[in-house]
Amino acid sequence: MITSTKNAAVGEIRQLLAKAHKRRETGTFAVEGPRMAAELPKELFVRGFVTEEARERYGENVLRGLPYETVTEAVMKAMSDTVTPQGILAEVRQPMTEPDKLIPPHGPALVLVLEDLADPGNVGTLIRTAEAAGATGVVLTAGGADPFQPKVVRATMGGIFRVPLAEMPSGADAARWLQERGVACYGAALRETEEYDGPDYTGPAAFFIGNEAHGLSEACLEALLHTIVIPMEGRVESLNAAAAGTVLLYEAHRQRKNRVIH
Amino acid sequence: MITSTKNAAVGEIRQLLAKAHKRRETGTFAVEGPRMAAELPKELFVRGFVTEEARERYGENVLRGLPYETVTEAVMKAMSDTVTPQGILAEVRQPMTEPDKLIPPHGPALVLVLEDLADPGNVGTLIRTAEAAGATGVVLTAGGADPFQPKVVRATMGGIFRVPLAEMPSGADAARWLQERGVACYGAALRETEEYDGPDYTGPAAFFIGNEAHGLSEACLEALLHTIVIPMEGRVESLNAAAAGTVLLYEAHRQRKNRVIH
Repeated sequence: MITSTKNAAVGEIRQLLAKAHKRRETGTFAVEGPRMAAELPKELFVRGFVTEEARERYGENVLRGLPYETVTEAVMKAMSDTVTPQGILAEVRQPMTEPDKLIPPHGPALVLVLEDLADPGNVGTLIRTAEAAGATGVVLTAGGADPFQPKVVRATMGGIFRVPLAEMPSGADAARWLQERGVACYGAALRETEEYDGPDYTGPAAFFIGNEAHGLSEACLEALLHTIVIPMEGRVESLNAAAAGTVLLYEAHRQRKNRVIH
Repeated sequence: MITSTKNAAVGEIRQLLAKAHKRRETGTFAVEGPRMAAELPKELFVRGFVTEEARERYGENVLRGLPYETVTEAVMKAMSDTVTPQGILAEVRQPMTEPDKLIPPHGPALVLVLEDLADPGNVGTLIRTAEAAGATGVVLTAGGADPFQPKVVRATMGGIFRVPLAEMPSGADAARWLQERGVACYGAALRETEEYDGPDYTGPAAFFIGNEAHGLSEACLEALLHTIVIPMEGRVESLNAAAAGTVLLYEAHRQRKNRVIH
């Protein structure tokens, strides 16, 4: 049982939660709470920490039967990122996959590419929505928010472990890589003539969403074979990045569900 | 020119930004920055504050020609809600309208009802998306996040001044009120058989989105004539409230744009 907040594990977990460079160094991240504990894939598990109270509340198998150290409430509080810790914390390896894994062996790919998205809430909610819409993977670029920071992880509601995630250097790289493999790539842009609900997304398709402030980069737009626009009424200049991604993902989902033939 | 951070206006504006009960008391709220200054309707204006630097940068008409007091950088910093204030701040009356205004005299209504939505980011981004999708109004309920707090206002990107907003006591009240006026009301629920893209939304329609943790209340579900589900793949339990609202609003927009006949 860890009773001292000076235990080395306390500082290590705290740093994993707070610092992107620490997560890059270890290739791991930390997740909190009973919901995440129930979702975490056993093969990614590194180590766990549980308070006595949480073990009583959630039972001996609180961490899916994986081994853990018992810690005091004070130690958990010192480790945790949240104001009211839920008594369960685990270090797990980052579930990044090779890009090949984004293209399923059967059925058409549906990939979401987030080019340099900066807002953790947007990244997290889009991973959650991507899973719901049946996406086969999400691509993140090197310049975007770290997907393993607590805000992103929480917003995915477990999706961080279930949606195949791959990192690529840039949106342009992702466009070239996907297009070479027969995936039709569509960039969400603001001044295009083709509306988003025109194309047929029932084949292999990918949607590209750009940075909140700058949109898709010039290099990415040049590499993309298709760009589309989501029409907007009123005097709205743009949709929130997560809203734009949601509209596109669910248009593809709707078409696939209803097998629309154009 | 206000040079002292002890000036009464400093505390008043700071409270308007920080405290919901203060905003209720005055019926006003505060907005910051050049974008909001350019959007604010003159008839709602109460008073303005501008730094000398901001006046130099944005010109004499920085507040649409409305009168303002000049303040020092230190006073602006003391008033402001942001870490790096943009030098422009205005107190304006809350643009709440009577529910009748949500139903346009020509063309079909498209109303979004947010029942007790708690997250300011969700409320703000949904007001922004509602405007983009051509909604004729948004209903907020008494138990939800205050739409005039800075986080909501910022997330609307000016939509707070452009989308008709009305408050009603509850979702059930909104359902009865709208249905009595011939608006077809659809509640987003999780266990329904009718998928969201089945109904025809080209007539007067309203979508109901429930609280992030609890969904729509029992009373609201009972009052609603229709409930619909957004199908989800994977092991997602629900969509984020803003994502669900986005999918529904843009389905209505798509149908209206394409004049789908069922």
